[in-house]
Amino acid sequence: MSELKINSQRLRKDLQALSQIGLRHDHGIYRMAFSKGDLAGRDWFLQQINDAGLTAHQDGAANICARLGWDDYETPNVIAGSHLDTVPGAGHLDGALGVVAALEALRVFKEQNVALTCPVEAISFTDEEGRFGGLFGSQSMAGLVTPEYLHNAIDLEGYALTTAMKDCGFNALDALHTQRRPGSIRAYVELHIEQGPVLDRKALAIGVVEAITGLIKWEITLNGTANHAGTTPMDMRKDAFQGLAEFASQIERVLSEFGSPRSVATVGTVALTPGAANVVPGQAVFSLEIRDTDQKILDDLADAFRRVLSAIARRRDLMFEFNVLSRIEPVACSPKIIDAIYESVQAADVRYTKLHSGAAHDAQIIANIAPAGMIFVPSKDGRSHSTAEWTAWEDIEAGANILLNTMRRLAG
Amino acid sequence: MSELKINSQRLRKDLQALSQIGLRHDHGIYRMAFSKGDLAGRDWFLQQINDAGLTAHQDGAANICARLGWDDYETPNVIAGSHLDTVPGAGHLDGALGVVAALEALRVFKEQNVALTCPVEAISFTDEEGRFGGLFGSQSMAGLVTPEYLHNAIDLEGYALTTAMKDCGFNALDALHTQRRPGSIRAYVELHIEQGPVLDRKALAIGVVEAITGLIKWEITLNGTANHAGTTPMDMRKDAFQGLAEFASQIERVLSEFGSPRSVATVGTVALTPGAANVVPGQAVFSLEIRDTDQKILDDLADAFRRVLSAIARRRDLMFEFNVLSRIEPVACSPKIIDAIYESVQAADVRYTKLHSGAAHDAQIIANIAPAGMIFVPSKDGRSHSTAEWTAWEDIEAGANILLNTMRRLAG
Repeated sequence: MSELKINSQRLRKDLQALSQIGLRHDHGIYRMAFSKGDLAGRDWFLQQINDAGLTAHQDGAANICARLGWDDYETPNVIAGSHLDTVPGAGHLDGALGVVAALEALRVFKEQNVALTCPVEAISFTDEEGRFGGLFGSQSMAGLVTPEYLHNAIDLEGYALTTAMKDCGFNALDALHTQRRPGSIRAYVELHIEQGPVLDRKALAIGVVEAITGLIKWEITLNGTANHAGTTPMDMRKDAFQGLAEFASQIERVLSEFGSPRSVATVGTVALTPGAANVVPGQAVFSLEIRDTDQKILDDLADAFRRVLSAIARRRDLMFEFNVLSRIEPVACSPKIIDAIYESVQAADVRYTKLHSGAAHDAQIIANIAPAGMIFVPSKDGRSHSTAEWTAWEDIEAGANILLNTMRRLAG
Repeated sequence: MSELKINSQRLRKDLQALSQIGLRHDHGIYRMAFSKGDLAGRDWFLQQINDAGLTAHQDGAANICARLGWDDYETPNVIAGSHLDTVPGAGHLDGALGVVAALEALRVFKEQNVALTCPVEAISFTDEEGRFGGLFGSQSMAGLVTPEYLHNAIDLEGYALTTAMKDCGFNALDALHTQRRPGSIRAYVELHIEQGPVLDRKALAIGVVEAITGLIKWEITLNGTANHAGTTPMDMRKDAFQGLAEFASQIERVLSEFGSPRSVATVGTVALTPGAANVVPGQAVFSLEIRDTDQKILDDLADAFRRVLSAIARRRDLMFEFNVLSRIEPVACSPKIIDAIYESVQAADVRYTKLHSGAAHDAQIIANIAPAGMIFVPSKDGRSHSTAEWTAWEDIEAGANILLNTMRRLAG
C-alpha cells in the first residue's frame, strides 16, 4: 500500500484564507467562540465542505462536521479535527491546522476514491480556547457538559454562553443531547502544533504524542502580617512574600524528588497586599499549576507541595488556604492510534520523536469516549497563542500527510 | 534641679482635638499636606500657639513654629517638633504627638518661667508623609530642596505641589529661602511613636534613639521569556519569577553574612508579566528596600545583593536592571542630645532601652544642619499608619515629660 499525499497547494490556500478571517491589523486573529470572526470562520468551513462535495453537519454544541461515507450509521467511524476558534490575538495555526488538514484528508479520500471500511469525519469543535470555559464542543460530544455549566458559563465581560449561542441561532441546551453513542467512534486523531519548544530545538518534523498531561491548578493564599518595612526587625516579621519565595524556590527540588521528567510546575500569578515597597507583605495570593502525564505522580506532587507549604507556614507563623481552580486527568493515547501514526511516520521517512502534550486539547476530552491520539508539528521557539506562532511549511505538509495516512490506516 | 512635668490633661485634650481634625468616619485621619484636613490642623495649631501666648511663625515651606524667647536672634536655639500631616487613613499619634508635646513643653517653660539660656521652638514640618515626595518642610529648612523638585513634585493624582501651595496662599519657591543659618540650631529633638514592635514586645516605655537608618530602594526588573506553562519543560524555561524567588530566599542569608543586627531588607511589591496561571512569567518587576544605621554596611549589603542577583541571572539566563528609587544616608544621633535624654529618663525612673529608628523622620534631615536626637514611645503591636495605631497614655505622658526635661537640659 503506497502512501497517500495531500494536495499541498490546496492546504496552503485554506490556511491562508483562514488566516485572514478575524484578523485585526497587526494584532493577530480574533475568532473567540461565537464572535464575528468565529462566525465567519464557521461560514468559510461550511462552504469548503460543500465545495468538496462532503456532507456538512452541525450538532447541538455547534460543532461542525464534514462527513464522508456517512450513510453507514452502524459502523464506528474515524474522526480527525481540532478547532477553528482562537484566543484573542492568535496566530494562524493553533486549531486551524488540525481542522483544515482533516478536511483535506477527506477530500483526498473522496477524490481518489480510497477504499475505507468505515465513515470518516473532519470536525471543528466549539470554544476549545475557553471564551466560556474551554473544550465546550468536545465535552458536549463526550457527554460531560452539565445544565449547571450551560446556565452559568459567562465570558470575561459577563456575557452568557446561552445568550451568545442564541444570538447565533443555537440553543445551548441542545449541547446536552450531543453525546455520541458509546462505541460509535473507532478513533479520534488530532494534528496540532506542539506549542512547546521540543521539536524545534531538536529539529524534528513530527511528534508522536503518547500522552496528554493532566493538571492541578490551585490558587494559594498565604496570610502573614503587614508591617512597616523599616521598623520591623527581620525576626519579628510574618512576611507572606518570603513564605512564597521559599515555597517557589523548592519547586525544582520537589519535581526532582517526586515528579517524572515530564513534570512541570509553575507560579504564574502573584498578588501582594498591601503591595508597597516600604511595607512587609501581609498577604500573598499566587497560582500554582502542576502537570504530568501520570495521575499518581500528579497526586504525589500535589501532596509534596502541600507538605512544603505547610512546613513553611508553620515555621514562619503564616496561615494558608488552597483553592482548587481546576483538575484535569492525564490521558494516555490509544496504542492502536500510536501504532498507526508510527507506521505512517516511518513510511514517510521524516525525523520524529515520541512526545507528550503539555497543553490541553479536545483529544484529551474525546479520550473519555473513544481511542484518541495526536500528531505534533514543531512550533518555532515554542511560541503559540500569539502572532509569533510559526511552523515551516515542509513540517506542516509532513504533518498533514501523516494525519492523512494515519486516518487511512485506522479506517482501512 | 527637680524634673519638670507637663500638664497631662492639656496634652490629652490637644491630642483628642487633633484626632477629630480630618477624621473620616471609620476610615482614620486624612490630613495629607495641603488637604482640607491639613489646613484645619494648621489653623488649630496656630490657635493653640496664640492661646498659649507664644509667637507664631510660618516660613517659606509653610512650616509652622511656636516660639519662646525669640527676641534673641543671636543665640543658637533648641527646637522640638514633628509634623501634623498624615498618610491617608492615619492614626492619631504619628507626627501629631511630637508637635503637641513640643508645644506643651513651651507652655510649661512659659508658665513656670523656667530659666533657659536660649530661645526654644516647637515646630510642625510640612509634608513629612510625602503627598508630594516627603520630608519637604525639614528639607527646606536644611537647604536641601531644589528648584527642580519644586517644579516637578506632584501627588498621585498629578496635582502639582506649586499649585497646592498657591491654592493655600503660599509660594512654593519661597521654600528655597527657608534654610536656617548654619550654627543657628543648638539641638533638634523629636518625640515620636516607634512604629515598630520592639518597645511593645519588651514592655518598655521609652526608646532612646541612637541612630536613624538609611535606606537604599531599588526597583529591579528580571527579564526571561514568557512560555506556555504546560508545553515548556523545566530545563527550557527562563522563568523570571523563579529568579526572583531564588533571590528573595537568599535575603536572610545575605543579611546574616553582610549585615548588622539592625539590617532589614524587604521585597514589598511584585508584578509579573504576562501574569497568567498557565504562562511562565517572562518578566518580574519588584522592589527591594535595604535599611541599616551604618552607610558602610548598607553599601556592603547593596553589593552583596547585586552579586546574588547577577549570579542567579547568569545561571538562569535572565537579564536584569536596577533602577535606584531612593538612597537616604543613615544618621547618628548627637551624643550630647542622647546624654540629655538618658539623664531625663534616669531621673524619671521609667523602663527604657537604646534603639534605632527604622523609619525616616524629619530629625534625619535636620541632622544635616544641627545636632539631632529622637525619643520613642511604644507602638502597640508595632502598628502605625492605620487606625490600629495606639500607645498607652502613661507611655505618652512619660515620653512628653522626657521631651520636656531633655529640652530644658539642652536649653539650660
